[in-house]
Amino acid sequence: MSKVNKVVLAYSGGLDTSVILEWLKDTYNCEVVTFTADLGQGEELEPARQKAQQFGVKEIYIDDLREEFARDFVFPMFRANAIYEGEYLLGTSIARPLIAKRQVEIARETGADAVAHGATGKGNDQVRFELGYYGLEPGIKVIAPWREWDLLSREKLLAYAEEKGIPIEGKKEGGSPYSMDANMLHISYEGGILEDPWAEAEESMWKWSVAPEDAPDKPQYVELTFEHGDCTAIDGQAMSPAGILSKLNELGAAHGIGRLDIVENRYVGMKSRGCYETPGGTILLKAHRGIESITLDREAAHLKDELMPRYAKLIYNGYWFSPEREALQAAIDQTQQVVNGVVRVKLYKGAVSVVGRKSDTNSLFDERIATFEDDAGAYDQKDAEGFIKLNALRLKLQSRHRS
Amino acid sequence: MSKVNKVVLAYSGGLDTSVILEWLKDTYNCEVVTFTADLGQGEELEPARQKAQQFGVKEIYIDDLREEFARDFVFPMFRANAIYEGEYLLGTSIARPLIAKRQVEIARETGADAVAHGATGKGNDQVRFELGYYGLEPGIKVIAPWREWDLLSREKLLAYAEEKGIPIEGKKEGGSPYSMDANMLHISYEGGILEDPWAEAEESMWKWSVAPEDAPDKPQYVELTFEHGDCTAIDGQAMSPAGILSKLNELGAAHGIGRLDIVENRYVGMKSRGCYETPGGTILLKAHRGIESITLDREAAHLKDELMPRYAKLIYNGYWFSPEREALQAAIDQTQQVVNGVVRVKLYKGAVSVVGRKSDTNSLFDERIATFEDDAGAYDQKDAEGFIKLNALRLKLQSRHRS
Amino acid sequence: MSKVNKVVLAYSGGLDTSVILEWLKDTYNCEVVTFTADLGQGEELEPARQKAQQFGVKEIYIDDLREEFARDFVFPMFRANAIYEGEYLLGTSIARPLIAKRQVEIARETGADAVAHGATGKGNDQVRFELGYYGLEPGIKVIAPWREWDLLSREKLLAYAEEKGIPIEGKKEGGSPYSMDANMLHISYEGGILEDPWAEAEESMWKWSVAPEDAPDKPQYVELTFEHGDCTAIDGQAMSPAGILSKLNELGAAHGIGRLDIVENRYVGMKSRGCYETPGGTILLKAHRGIESITLDREAAHLKDELMPRYAKLIYNGYWFSPEREALQAAIDQTQQVVNGVVRVKLYKGAVSVVGRKSDTNSLFDERIATFEDDAGAYDQKDAEGFIKLNALRLKLQSRHRS
Amino acid sequence: MSKVNKVVLAYSGGLDTSVILEWLKDTYNCEVVTFTADLGQGEELEPARQKAQQFGVKEIYIDDLREEFARDFVFPMFRANAIYEGEYLLGTSIARPLIAKRQVEIARETGADAVAHGATGKGNDQVRFELGYYGLEPGIKVIAPWREWDLLSREKLLAYAEEKGIPIEGKKEGGSPYSMDANMLHISYEGGILEDPWAEAEESMWKWSVAPEDAPDKPQYVELTFEHGDCTAIDGQAMSPAGILSKLNELGAAHGIGRLDIVENRYVGMKSRGCYETPGGTILLKAHRGIESITLDREAAHLKDELMPRYAKLIYNGYWFSPEREALQAAIDQTQQVVNGVVRVKLYKGAVSVVGRKSDTNSLFDERIATFEDDAGAYDQKDAEGFIKLNALRLKLQSRHRS
Repeated sequence: MSKVNKVVLAYSGGLDTSVILEWLKDTYNCEVVTFTADLGQGEELEPARQKAQQFGVKEIYIDDLREEFARDFVFPMFRANAIYEGEYLLGTSIARPLIAKRQVEIARETGADAVAHGATGKGNDQVRFELGYYGLEPGIKVIAPWREWDLLSREKLLAYAEEKGIPIEGKKEGGSPYSMDANMLHISYEGGILEDPWAEAEESMWKWSVAPEDAPDKPQYVELTFEHGDCTAIDGQAMSPAGILSKLNELGAAHGIGRLDIVENRYVGMKSRGCYETPGGTILLKAHRGIESITLDREAAHLKDELMPRYAKLIYNGYWFSPEREALQAAIDQTQQVVNGVVRVKLYKGAVSVVGRKSDTNSLFDERIATFEDDAGAYDQKDAEGFIKLNALRLKLQSRHRS
Repeated sequence: MSKVNKVVLAYSGGLDTSVILEWLKDTYNCEVVTFTADLGQGEELEPARQKAQQFGVKEIYIDDLREEFARDFVFPMFRANAIYEGEYLLGTSIARPLIAKRQVEIARETGADAVAHGATGKGNDQVRFELGYYGLEPGIKVIAPWREWDLLSREKLLAYAEEKGIPIEGKKEGGSPYSMDANMLHISYEGGILEDPWAEAEESMWKWSVAPEDAPDKPQYVELTFEHGDCTAIDGQAMSPAGILSKLNELGAAHGIGRLDIVENRYVGMKSRGCYETPGGTILLKAHRGIESITLDREAAHLKDELMPRYAKLIYNGYWFSPEREALQAAIDQTQQVVNGVVRVKLYKGAVSVVGRKSDTNSLFDERIATFEDDAGAYDQKDAEGFIKLNALRLKLQSRHRS
Repeated sequence: MSKVNKVVLAYSGGLDTSVILEWLKDTYNCEVVTFTADLGQGEELEPARQKAQQFGVKEIYIDDLREEFARDFVFPMFRANAIYEGEYLLGTSIARPLIAKRQVEIARETGADAVAHGATGKGNDQVRFELGYYGLEPGIKVIAPWREWDLLSREKLLAYAEEKGIPIEGKKEGGSPYSMDANMLHISYEGGILEDPWAEAEESMWKWSVAPEDAPDKPQYVELTFEHGDCTAIDGQAMSPAGILSKLNELGAAHGIGRLDIVENRYVGMKSRGCYETPGGTILLKAHRGIESITLDREAAHLKDELMPRYAKLIYNGYWFSPEREALQAAIDQTQQVVNGVVRVKLYKGAVSVVGRKSDTNSLFDERIATFEDDAGAYDQKDAEGFIKLNALRLKLQSRHRS
Repeated sequence: MSKVNKVVLAYSGGLDTSVILEWLKDTYNCEVVTFTADLGQGEELEPARQKAQQFGVKEIYIDDLREEFARDFVFPMFRANAIYEGEYLLGTSIARPLIAKRQVEIARETGADAVAHGATGKGNDQVRFELGYYGLEPGIKVIAPWREWDLLSREKLLAYAEEKGIPIEGKKEGGSPYSMDANMLHISYEGGILEDPWAEAEESMWKWSVAPEDAPDKPQYVELTFEHGDCTAIDGQAMSPAGILSKLNELGAAHGIGRLDIVENRYVGMKSRGCYETPGGTILLKAHRGIESITLDREAAHLKDELMPRYAKLIYNGYWFSPEREALQAAIDQTQQVVNGVVRVKLYKGAVSVVGRKSDTNSLFDERIATFEDDAGAYDQKDAEGFIKLNALRLKLQSRHRS
């Protein structure tokens, strides 16, 4: 075991990371700096400070990262229309690199030589955290207690907590049976009954959104304004990136939008069942595709579509801070200069539909050309013959040998 | 104008193709063979026969192609999870090659030297038909009246029809303001008010499905069985491919599922607004992804996801009968041998959600490994450290030069 | 035929474009502006001026575009390691957009409403010119005489030339049997005996390079310095982009480097035989890959390799000025910041080999880690076990069902 | 350490694998089965048998796998024109899966519960072997002595050998300073002076081929016949796959063809310098591209080009036995049915050039269409106008907003 002087711990204030806090001191005999991030998960952060103080932590960081998260992580990702495996909006994946980045920064500020996180050895998050750490600070020491310690069973962990005087209320007698993660983009559920992929998720599991069945019986219409591919206003009201996301979450949750139940492929090799609520993100994705549909050139759009699965996979796998993600981002961002305009969406009983889109400055939709009515010469139908004949030429040549 | 002896016309029995029928005889002084296909568009075909007879056509083909369409075109396409531009299920695109193929076969059977279709010079369908013709029969002559004649305005067309004694009931006093196409996969709408992409489609436009608002207030659950990537039974009831598609259409339409309103990029260069109803296909796509999620290997699935946009574009653009589509199909089909099992979906107010999936023979989901609970050694968490460290190595090396 | 007032003609001063010059005046009764570009093709340009004057042209543009060509077209393309169909270095393709761009600029300067070029209706160059024109100036009129006139046979063309008093020396009694194109990146040959793809090209055809058999019996070593992916010095001597290309051409030609004989697929649908000499470019490509090999991150390099065929195809097909090429370029350029260092190549009898590469500032090659000798703990071999086991996990899971 | 009863060792008969043999018995107290494969590496295999007997091995497998290697591994890979990182022909990578497969088969035949190999913990080969083992036999135990033992320095290894009575002639007093691997596709060199990427490889290192400088002063011409993408005859002489490869090696080596010196990216994360001789493969690759150039449809060829880097990477990384490699192979093989004909190549001083190609049955090259001479109407140049105009339409539309 390598020597550690000071470690920056990603600290939620909950039972697990409190146990880790104590275990780090015990095991490494080192100083611990706690770092708690507000990513819009909707929890009080002050209790985390109090708990950290209680455990004798001297350097306590509690940072509101909501705007940075929305602006520099969520929004760039949505420019790509990123979806993992056709379904997942990457809500957890996109938050990890920011936490890792801030941990590394705090390590530099506090002179710490190590960082630690509370992710298990079976999941994707350990990878996302650690690729972030190593990619930003190659010499840093990384401590992943779940892979090191022997507190693998719940009983052992609780015993250790009791021994250390860590409060375990709530945890003992039940609490949620799910492993959850939340930030302003989404909330996720794993474990419990979900480990049987044939079993339907219980209604009681979902925390953010109403059930589509309980959503209003009347649809609601919303207009999203986009500038350079980012949403900047809702119903004409300009907002910050985090403001946009919050407002869309509110709207989506009220209409039962953005629930997802999938079996996904983890980077570490196994399949796992996950349920997600991404109310605002689900609206945003649909609307972004809508505004692109009238402003983005066909081949630029198709290029994006072909690159997207790879881009989404990079984020899922934890490669946000990598040269290949940055190269893809450069390509994506290059296309978004023209993505300006307004999209009108309808929210109803769990579904979001685009019903209108317009762009004063960048619309490529030309009614004169598209119309099946007389277009007064805007498009010469005879051109199509040559177009088809030359595109068919190679097919004709190879077809000769088939017959 | 090249000489034509006999031409096989894709004939619907409607006004436009009836005008074409007469115009072909007039213009080319040739014999016309009519071909009318039942692709499940839900129209009577006998009137087409009667009309053709009325116009003196001697060789009249009316073919029920529903099973071939579902089995050899729709199902292979759904194995790929094909979606064009993130939204469109390719309902029109996938039908054109089959019509072209059958026209070419009939041309061979009847000794015809030409084929003709009623698609305009502005759309994708002309391309799809003609690439099909040329790809299957390189020497065939192709007649596209809409690109040749001077009947481009509605008035001229009606005048010509009147002159030729072609019945024009319905067309004069209104009828649908939309240009529509239907087959057992979908119905599409273009034109009319849709030419303004900001205007919402009118409820009266939609022909197949109830509005989500009018769908039942209680969700319905359905189980789809898959074998080798194709759906073979619904709620345990085995059916033919066309039977599956019909049943899913019925279920989907009743729940307002599968409506779509988009601006898409045509192959001939412009953007156009289209609305679509694909009730059964929408369910099928979701369920197919669901069964793949527990049976298909991660990297095979990701490969498919990365190839899909290109595959969908090929179909959209009319390249079904092309070496590159066939190569991609070979790759896709190769992956589907293991795609066996059952998916349970919930239908409610316009949305379809997967709520369960299982596979007795091919599940790759292993609760023992995925669990966050104690797994009795099925997975060694310590392996993750090496996995991460080696994946991080290149990032560490390049990061050194950054700081 | 649409009315034309003034047309900017891409004018070489040769027989064909001189005939076009006269034909344009005759046919369109318009003014002609001639534009002759120095792209390093190694021909005197003053004769073109004199001829244009002789034909009464009032606005004559003769521009030295060599530096712009090398800096803004050739170098960005080489950052991508672009090769079409595994072989072709795109020497003609990359020059056309620059000519088109300059023609459009001149049209704006001179108030011309049309542009014209001398490319035939069978080749790629018409497409490259015209996509450039339309992409930069959507309303411009384009005249492609070879697709319009009836001078398709050599006899008719010569007769027309004689009638118009256009000098045809050289052309009558032979001259080269090949259709050629040259610029500072390459010279190309098509036609003549090459139309039989089984026939070997004659030694007399090659104009620039010595035959490998006649190259020096001793190899020559050269060092190329790269900054941000571009070659900036040869053997320590700093040079401009055009200077670099000229010097490499000289070196390559002397050693018989860069000859190529291929059958390629034209964008307009047919296969064609082409022979090419690209002496400097062949060295540059090899060296660029060499410097990337020690400075570029693995996954960034692999991403580039996967995007390259598509990028090369875009250039081949004439889409330089397109949103999708620009998006790819942004990705490529993003990766090149770290591509700094020196490559040592050996030139010998037609072959160029990289024999050394180094980078003081950006080498990712770490002898300590790569060595099979004892590395003093720089790399922990035990990490490999976890790496392999987790990568194997999905294979193990799916393999169970196979046996 | 898990219990092992019987292990199948990939055994070369050399010092290292002999040490491993003894170490396995010592460490695991298990029975060892040796397996020695003839992959055309050009070494006597009988000494391996004698040595194994000497060490008391009872089950000794010595298999001639040359035909299987060429037919089922090398040839399918060459159908893809596979090259890793633009340079490397994958000679080592493609051999490992076959060895792994045979080891697993022998384990089944002999009732062994484990397999072992002699690859180090730093290289790619450990990954290739082990992914093969796990992919074919998920429950097998894998022993990688280099990652387990403490014989990491040369001295310790030799001391152990001496102690066990393992002959170490040659190794003590020099021998090659390089780490080498050979099979009938190639020979590779790593280590020694190559660990400095700026240092040129010594002439004495290369074992198979003459230096280009020492190759004949006269070029040699060879004709390769292809059927369905595989080479089946040389100069009209039909041969087995292994026969083809041997003959091409002979020809290539005599002309100094196929030497390569690169820095490559290992899967385990670091860059490493490697030198390779692949004389026959280099000829084969060039010729295969040549025959494809006249028989393969353009878009099928481009699809292959775009998939190739990914396919090559899979093989390099050890994923031969994976669903994604098999899917890609299905696509590639699908395209090769038409790849039939003859290619004529010129071998001279280290270079191989295609100088002619023909196909009686599948040529898509049509002189009538390609010619710039009068083509008697085979191609209508006017078609190009429509082709260009429709391809330009989207560019024109988006260009409007730029100016």
